[in-house]
Amino acid sequence: MFTGLSAFPLTPLRDDVIDLAAFEGLVARLVEAKVDSVTALGSTGSYAYLDRSERRQVTEAAIAAAGPVPVIVGIGALRTSQVRALAEDAQDAGAAGVLLAPLTYQKHTEDDVFGLYEDVTADLSVPLVVYDNPGTTHFTFSDELYGRIAELPNVASIKIPAIPADPASAAARVDAIRARVPAQVTIGISGDSAAQTGLSAGCDVWYSVIGGTLPQLATAIARPALAGDVDAARAASNRHQPLWDAFAKHGSLRVTAAIAEHLGLVTRSSLPRPILGLSTEERLDVAKLVTDLGLQN
Amino acid sequence: MFTGLSAFPLTPLRDDVIDLAAFEGLVARLVEAKVDSVTALGSTGSYAYLDRSERRQVTEAAIAAAGPVPVIVGIGALRTSQVRALAEDAQDAGAAGVLLAPLTYQKHTEDDVFGLYEDVTADLSVPLVVYDNPGTTHFTFSDELYGRIAELPNVASIKIPAIPADPASAAARVDAIRARVPAQVTIGISGDSAAQTGLSAGCDVWYSVIGGTLPQLATAIARPALAGDVDAARAASNRHQPLWDAFAKHGSLRVTAAIAEHLGLVTRSSLPRPILGLSTEERLDVAKLVTDLGLQN
Repeated sequence: MFTGLSAFPLTPLRDDVIDLAAFEGLVARLVEAKVDSVTALGSTGSYAYLDRSERRQVTEAAIAAAGPVPVIVGIGALRTSQVRALAEDAQDAGAAGVLLAPLTYQKHTEDDVFGLYEDVTADLSVPLVVYDNPGTTHFTFSDELYGRIAELPNVASIKIPAIPADPASAAARVDAIRARVPAQVTIGISGDSAAQTGLSAGCDVWYSVIGGTLPQLATAIARPALAGDVDAARAASNRHQPLWDAFAKHGSLRVTAAIAEHLGLVTRSSLPRPILGLSTEERLDVAKLVTDLGLQN
Repeated sequence: MFTGLSAFPLTPLRDDVIDLAAFEGLVARLVEAKVDSVTALGSTGSYAYLDRSERRQVTEAAIAAAGPVPVIVGIGALRTSQVRALAEDAQDAGAAGVLLAPLTYQKHTEDDVFGLYEDVTADLSVPLVVYDNPGTTHFTFSDELYGRIAELPNVASIKIPAIPADPASAAARVDAIRARVPAQVTIGISGDSAAQTGLSAGCDVWYSVIGGTLPQLATAIARPALAGDVDAARAASNRHQPLWDAFAKHGSLRVTAAIAEHLGLVTRSSLPRPILGLSTEERLDVAKLVTDLGLQN
């Protein structure tokens, strides 16, 4: 489950209420594209903006719509007791695994973060993905902390941020993490523009933003990369450079939401306010990018 | 209300439940010390870690315990609709004002933040303090954005982060902000070590962490500073340099909680997990600091 392609669907809103029908439609596309797992309520799924009952709804809908595909559910929250309650909800609903980022308001120490994972994994009955996303959490894991946390019970995977673009440096980076964590703990790349490099450098799984909305695009990169065909994977990734450039400029969430809105997969203004979607002008650029790259197919 | 000394009490927990009796005790000390206002559920009051019903409890307790002293209530949350609900709760409970920081998970644009304040102030019936705390929100206001937001209805004050230590540079900084915002909008300094400099440089109010736990210490700095006696204010602030050094090292929240725990104002482990309190060794340093500076009196 913690290998291959894990696709992160958006959680679309409509007038500040979760649009469950649109969400189920997104998950159905992922099943059809044969992704290896669905991660609901990741950063792309706006988990941090949703309350407990909304998160329960999304979890249940994801599991129902995913059928045989395993569903991992994001359980991040600022307070440990809130995370534990969300873990319980996810387990009760039938999640195959959970994903946990160390959200911060006050700056965390390494001991705070270790304590969070220690407290949460102690109660778990499903595997956990450690979610290292410094762009949103403003916490930076050391490799030593990866190692300490990876030894905790139920830790199954670590989702790491983007790695160096140069293949040799990328491989060295993945090897350095690999040396710190038990063999059964998989290493997953995130940052879609770095996915091919990460998978070719030895990552076991791609935790993918764009894969949650355009799974065909993601499989076109992931399948050759996982099969060891570096050249084909690189060509597939490089062909989407304008998309990665847009992600770098506006953030992957806003661009992915604009694509989903443009394609009619979700309705306009699908992101939780105060996050505004792209401007009208920026949307025209996204629409052109969709046409140029053939993303509508 | 948005001038003088605004004191930010801790929201102490006890086994992950709000210790209302201890909280009321903290607020009673502030009333006795004649602070100008109490700001409940600021960063020091751990607002971001508490759910809506907990925040309602704390708001009601603060207003009851503060008697004639006006209470400002923090209403920050990640989603605009959550902020609006918290604003309504605060108003219903009788808050004299509200305090709003632009919490982030996804990186905010200036338009997102302006939109947040626009949406929230449109419904308000009490004044609002704009809370600029880049250390926790990871959002940086431009002076131009201060100006745009300060023109919105009900905006009464801006809580700014620490300013340059040099008095001339500090005065230039406060003047630059002052030139951007309407005359009736007060400017408040935060970062306790910068309070004397800020007040002497023309800030109207000190939004004080330590003032919420040790109000006598804060008034000893604020009163001369507000009366224009720069030398006396500076001497009072400089005398507490070891405290500011501890704030810089461990963060003001952890140090203030350790002081309150040491003095028996709250019970041990009063912070919301995953935030661990100071270590045993660090607590010994804090205890020594309390004795050396006479903070127990």
